[in-house]
Amino acid sequence: MTEAVSPLAPKSYPEMPAIAGVRIETAEIGIKYQGRTDLMIMVFDPGTEVAGVFTQSKCPSAPVDLCRVNLPGGKARILVVNSGNANAFTGRKGHAATAQTAEAAAAALGCAASEVFLASTGVIGEPLDAGKFIGHLPRLVSAAQGDRWLQAARAIMTTDTYPKVATRSAEIDGVSVQLNGIAKGAGMIAPDMATMLSFIVTDAAIPAAVLQEMLSALVKPTFNAITVDSDTSTSDTVLLFATGQQAGPGAADAHDALYAGFRAALLSLMEDLALQVVRDGEGARKQVEITVTGAVSDHSAGRIARSIANSPLVKTAVAGEDANWGRVVMAVGKAGEEADRDRLAIWFGDIRVAVGGERDPDYSEEEVSAVMRREEIPITVDLGLGEGRARVWTCDLTKAYVEINGDYRS
Amino acid sequence: MTEAVSPLAPKSYPEMPAIAGVRIETAEIGIKYQGRTDLMIMVFDPGTEVAGVFTQSKCPSAPVDLCRVNLPGGKARILVVNSGNANAFTGRKGHAATAQTAEAAAAALGCAASEVFLASTGVIGEPLDAGKFIGHLPRLVSAAQGDRWLQAARAIMTTDTYPKVATRSAEIDGVSVQLNGIAKGAGMIAPDMATMLSFIVTDAAIPAAVLQEMLSALVKPTFNAITVDSDTSTSDTVLLFATGQQAGPGAADAHDALYAGFRAALLSLMEDLALQVVRDGEGARKQVEITVTGAVSDHSAGRIARSIANSPLVKTAVAGEDANWGRVVMAVGKAGEEADRDRLAIWFGDIRVAVGGERDPDYSEEEVSAVMRREEIPITVDLGLGEGRARVWTCDLTKAYVEINGDYRS
Repeated sequence: MTEAVSPLAPKSYPEMPAIAGVRIETAEIGIKYQGRTDLMIMVFDPGTEVAGVFTQSKCPSAPVDLCRVNLPGGKARILVVNSGNANAFTGRKGHAATAQTAEAAAAALGCAASEVFLASTGVIGEPLDAGKFIGHLPRLVSAAQGDRWLQAARAIMTTDTYPKVATRSAEIDGVSVQLNGIAKGAGMIAPDMATMLSFIVTDAAIPAAVLQEMLSALVKPTFNAITVDSDTSTSDTVLLFATGQQAGPGAADAHDALYAGFRAALLSLMEDLALQVVRDGEGARKQVEITVTGAVSDHSAGRIARSIANSPLVKTAVAGEDANWGRVVMAVGKAGEEADRDRLAIWFGDIRVAVGGERDPDYSEEEVSAVMRREEIPITVDLGLGEGRARVWTCDLTKAYVEINGDYRS
Repeated sequence: MTEAVSPLAPKSYPEMPAIAGVRIETAEIGIKYQGRTDLMIMVFDPGTEVAGVFTQSKCPSAPVDLCRVNLPGGKARILVVNSGNANAFTGRKGHAATAQTAEAAAAALGCAASEVFLASTGVIGEPLDAGKFIGHLPRLVSAAQGDRWLQAARAIMTTDTYPKVATRSAEIDGVSVQLNGIAKGAGMIAPDMATMLSFIVTDAAIPAAVLQEMLSALVKPTFNAITVDSDTSTSDTVLLFATGQQAGPGAADAHDALYAGFRAALLSLMEDLALQVVRDGEGARKQVEITVTGAVSDHSAGRIARSIANSPLVKTAVAGEDANWGRVVMAVGKAGEEADRDRLAIWFGDIRVAVGGERDPDYSEEEVSAVMRREEIPITVDLGLGEGRARVWTCDLTKAYVEINGDYRS
């Protein structure tokens, strides 16, 4: 499949600074793809702390199982990621492959197998032959270097049309720290979990429990607030590593004022990566931001926002540049949450198209058409019931999505 | 929009017998469409009993509101249905239009306004001008005749590519009775409610309470078990009328053995119409039947079956004739219901493709490809946990769906 780069791809990439305490290497192994990298490792210095969130799927992949086992230790020395094969629904063979990879990685680096983290992305149900790449690990470990972030992002791509990287800096009690992150994902993207693969590294010295609290909280308004197609992957994994090279005083409470700047930078970086995933949604031509206000609770607002974001009729209307707010009404109505037709108001961009249970008599179809021709479409729904609010991001549903997914496996 | 007739359309239509106690007329009013009928009335003899089920949407249309008000009376004399405009989210104007139509219909026939039932289907949010058609009602009432079922089904079409009719007969205590039904629907079709418009008429003498019990029970394995695009309409309405012309002894209990044959015929007729809706799913090229067994409960099985049926990745794989069972695993996993990856088994047709948490080592890709080339694709999932089971029907997701819905309103 040769899909051109998404028209929503970033116009340029940020300079990704090296981060003390982590080194990266990629390789062409030929797991499924030819002529591109498909294996990526990150090697962490001793003392690196780790936090993670994973898919809520009841059928998680074997690497997700392994990460869940190793995460409570809170320590990471090496991350091994392959693309082209998800090692999901591969039974005992899948578990054998993750165990074999973890042991080989631990031996190559000289660490405990419990300090190894794995992720795999690609086709579900094909056995993964770990023998294909574990022989390369010693060489990759010694060749790893600090300045290979864009290469790392490329090696983990599947149907992605561009690599996804982001970088931020922050201060913790006067000590300047750096955060770098990469992500992949374009299809099988849905909210209510940590979406697809993302790996974030900081040189800050933050204990694993604090990292975990921040990651679990911040994944909600970022990765969990995006949806491409409502289909939750078996492999979703977000890992946050802190190498501790920029040691400050530290604090045991994630809400300590000490971490306010870091927390804001982490949120901003995660939102950046999450939006890059949406903007690379399979076949996407437009980014859609859905804001729901006035719901009876934030939870209710979130469910209504997702009902709109996942509606194929809303998404195809956006693709057709049609301000079809009747379909937004439909999606509010089907969400099963408290709503009162006669208090509903709907905006496309700044144009209010419906109010008080009917079409806004003052709206101009021309003005709203101009909004729909934009690359980024904001849709706002006010329910007029309470203070609950939520925001989710999605993309339009185009013929290219059907095309990409009609022949992905074959 | 000129969409060719669905390749899944019926090869021929049944002879629809006239049913004593009901007369039908259609007309070209030009509400939205030109050169086709868009108004349909059914006139019932005095004594006709009625039952109904409606959309669960929190933003129901004005005609649904009116039907809900009139239904407890249990008596019907006239049904007025228009296509081209849903009269949904039309505020006070919408309520005024339904009140005006009900009064005009009652005056034309000489019945109470509470014996009038209405349905509208088409664009959401456009005010419906009842003045356009209420003047025609007296003429239509006097011209109505018993043998116009196919015409009735045609007049209520929107994006449908073919009219949907079905007929059955049954015996109640030795008295032969007839059931005729029509339906419309192709998009904005989703389970968990009564889907789109369907009108069923029998000449049996059955009290409204009994009709209601049967309709509410039988809508679950029929209209509520189909989904085209997971989008629940604002206007879904199924009405069941009994003219009472074939008077038998009757019974007050819907489960009385007296009604066993009638109940079976009604179930068969409703399933027939529901499948016709799925087979006219917007852009559909294949019908998909999803059976889930071995769940912890029927409810859980139903949620898992719908998760599979609504997955865009499963539906696009079917469109691409790709037996991508990994996506079925994904859809089971995301449903949020109890599931054990290592007990899961999946079949396409008779071919078991996955078992015991991994690919079935014995399946032949060629055999399963032959299944995928069929027009009707059965997908079966056994969870291996309990006795819960469910069956839902859907269609594939093709580029034509995106095309149809990218320019419907404009």
